[in-house]
Amino acid sequence: LIGGGVLVGGVAIGYLIGLKAAQKKAHVNQAVKKDTDKVVDTVDMEDIGEKKVFCRCWRSSKFPYCDGTHNKHNAATGDNVGPLIVKGQAAQ
Amino acid sequence: LIGGGVLVGGVAIGYLIGLKAAQKKAHVNQAVKKDTDKVVDTVDMEDIGEKKVFCRCWRSSKFPYCDGTHNKHNAATGDNVGPLIVKGQAAQ
Ligand code: FES
Ligand code: FES
Repeated sequence: LIGGGVLVGGVAIGYLIGLKAAQKKAHVNQAVKKDTDKVVDTVDMEDIGEKKVFCRCWRSSKFPYCDGTHNKHNAATGDNVGPLIVKGQAAQ
Repeated sequence: LIGGGVLVGGVAIGYLIGLKAAQKKAHVNQAVKKDTDKVVDTVDMEDIGEKKVFCRCWRSSKFPYCDGTHNKHNAATGDNVGPLIVKGQAAQ
C-alpha cells in the first residue's frame, strides 16, 4: 500500500518535471524541412498578385502558404495563432 | 530500498507521460496578444517598401516583424524556424 502511494507520488512529480522540460524545449515547427538549419522563405512582391496568405503556425501542408490548419491547431491546443496576409496593389 | 526504486520508476514514468502531454498541447505562440482569439496581421504591399522581414517564431519583440530572436529560440530548443522575407519592387 505504501509502495503504491510512493509510485503515484513519483509519477505525479515526474509528470510535472516532464511538462516543464517539454515546455522549455518546445519546437514551433514540428514538420517543415526539419533537415534544414533554418527555414527562411523569400517572396517577391510581384508574385503576390492581389493577395497571399502566409502560414505562421508551421502546420500548413502548403507551407509557406496558409491552408487553414491553424484553426485545427488552435482548437486542439488552446493556442491563438493565425496567418500573415499581404495585400497586393490590385486589392487596394 | 524497494520504496526508493518504486519512486524513481514512478518519476521516470511520469516524466515521459508529462513530456508527451506537453508536446500535444504545445502553443506556438507564448506571448503575442494572448487575449485575442486569433492573431492575424494584414500588410499592404505599398507599405513594404524595398523589403520587410516577418516573424514566424512568435518570439519577436517587434511582432509581426522579425527582430532576430528566432536564432535564440532555435539555439535554446533545437528548432529550425526563420522569418518570411517579402521583397518589394525597388529590391528586384
Ligand atoms: S495554416 Fe498555418 S497559419 Fe494558417
Ligand atoms: S524573430 Fe521571429 S522569425 Fe525572426
